[in-house]
Amino acid sequence: MSPLYGGIEAGGTKFVCAVGTGPEDIRAEIRFPTASPADTIQKAVDFFREQQEIMRRPLAAIGIAAFGPLDPDRTSPTFGYITSTPKPGWQNADLAGEVARALNLPVGFDTDVNGAALAEGRWGAAQGLDTVLYLTIGTGFGGGGLVGGQLMHGLIHPEMGHIRIPHDRLRDPFEGACPYHGDCLEGLAAGPALEKRWGARAETLPPEHPAWDLEAHYLALGLHNYICTLSPQRIIMGGGVMSQPQLFPLVRAKTAELLNGYVQSPQILENIDEYIVPPALGAQAGVLGAFALAKDTL
Amino acid sequence: MSPLYGGIEAGGTKFVCAVGTGPEDIRAEIRFPTASPADTIQKAVDFFREQQEIMRRPLAAIGIAAFGPLDPDRTSPTFGYITSTPKPGWQNADLAGEVARALNLPVGFDTDVNGAALAEGRWGAAQGLDTVLYLTIGTGFGGGGLVGGQLMHGLIHPEMGHIRIPHDRLRDPFEGACPYHGDCLEGLAAGPALEKRWGARAETLPPEHPAWDLEAHYLALGLHNYICTLSPQRIIMGGGVMSQPQLFPLVRAKTAELLNGYVQSPQILENIDEYIVPPALGAQAGVLGAFALAKDTL
Repeated sequence: MSPLYGGIEAGGTKFVCAVGTGPEDIRAEIRFPTASPADTIQKAVDFFREQQEIMRRPLAAIGIAAFGPLDPDRTSPTFGYITSTPKPGWQNADLAGEVARALNLPVGFDTDVNGAALAEGRWGAAQGLDTVLYLTIGTGFGGGGLVGGQLMHGLIHPEMGHIRIPHDRLRDPFEGACPYHGDCLEGLAAGPALEKRWGARAETLPPEHPAWDLEAHYLALGLHNYICTLSPQRIIMGGGVMSQPQLFPLVRAKTAELLNGYVQSPQILENIDEYIVPPALGAQAGVLGAFALAKDTL
Repeated sequence: MSPLYGGIEAGGTKFVCAVGTGPEDIRAEIRFPTASPADTIQKAVDFFREQQEIMRRPLAAIGIAAFGPLDPDRTSPTFGYITSTPKPGWQNADLAGEVARALNLPVGFDTDVNGAALAEGRWGAAQGLDTVLYLTIGTGFGGGGLVGGQLMHGLIHPEMGHIRIPHDRLRDPFEGACPYHGDCLEGLAAGPALEKRWGARAETLPPEHPAWDLEAHYLALGLHNYICTLSPQRIIMGGGVMSQPQLFPLVRAKTAELLNGYVQSPQILENIDEYIVPPALGAQAGVLGAFALAKDTL
């Protein structure tokens, strides 16, 4: 009998908790809004306790793929904490520790994007690859992934949305929406930037609106930089903003144009449609990433 | 008796070949200008054959830390080749293969920057760290390093100098010197850009020349992006341009200013002097990197 995992997709807006073994086998799932740490963690713990009783077997481990910034370093005294988030109440919340103590189970803990990259590598769009970038562009702009088969950590973990890119203020006078950096990539291209620049929520802008060409331009500048810095074997782009189907062809064409033949790889020169792709696991990537983190903690 | 290695620092201008075991034990060294592949490789092979005779013992392996672009993927049919370089004669030169066949020895092969990062990790400024960035800013702008203890490869290998950064054409009307991207970071901040912008070789510009403040600004934009993308535990900056001692304090201050407190790590907030550092191994980093590549191939 293969081990059963608990997964928590811990988002800033909602938590998704699930029990299962993989994409074909999600046995139970619950969703609830992210409230205070104490209440939210209690709801998750209650769900997993209940599921263990219903299924009459213990879970092998819990995985948590969480919003950040967070501390994913197992050797750190604050491992498992959400750290310097502006989200009220969550600063220095010991998310993984509370769950581990309440359920007496091993807990894997990483960023939502690292979890999603792991899940896409195991079951989705990045199988067989060891260096993969996973980006999510929605209310924020996050990035993570695998380099040489290792989840990206380092000093803390990447904050890819905050890179600085060229910003032509004649074409786009919008000053940027990032409270730390103004017109960094997140400040120019995440959902709130689109809404502030155009005065309408991104999903209400029609496909032929000039917003999308500009958006693709910024995203391509970001991809150019990530490709030069990380040399990923594939780039997976998810999140609410990327659910606009007109974006992928624009982003691919503009990225190739910016690279201008410099990176001489057939994946980019001939096959960019399979190089810059949407997630294969869709909305499941979060909890599946959490399952993968649970498995890897054993 | 510990194994004896041969190391080749294969630069676009000169080759350095050495025999030894580490920084305290370089037993012989030769330098010669980079000519045609056949002549240059023959000189290196002759040196190692001669040294094996003089020392009356065989080398255990050869390491090559080379200019690029190159193919560092052992599973690829062109592993060990210099690939799409503009350097006359060297396009698709089988550097590692020729050396391996002539000497009948295992050959480790990687970029000069990955080799230098490996050497700094083993003996220099990055000991005990698993995620380290090594940059060299001279006639070109290269970057490599370790992520999670693995040398960075991926699709090919990073080409970090070619990232796009903000370029204020009012402050700096120079259009950039990169033949592929114009005003990418290498196009704005490598040695040839300094020379073209100011009409004088970088090393002749006095420390108080405005060139250095602008240079530090571009380098800090690059570091900001690398920090957000890779989250390195330390950044080592070498190469001819960085031998200007006034640059390090400027680059550190401007990088901290750009990050604006966003990455909440004491290494950046309190200790940036030990976070952005020169190479500890200096001019030896090249052949020592080659020794480390030789060792790791066994």
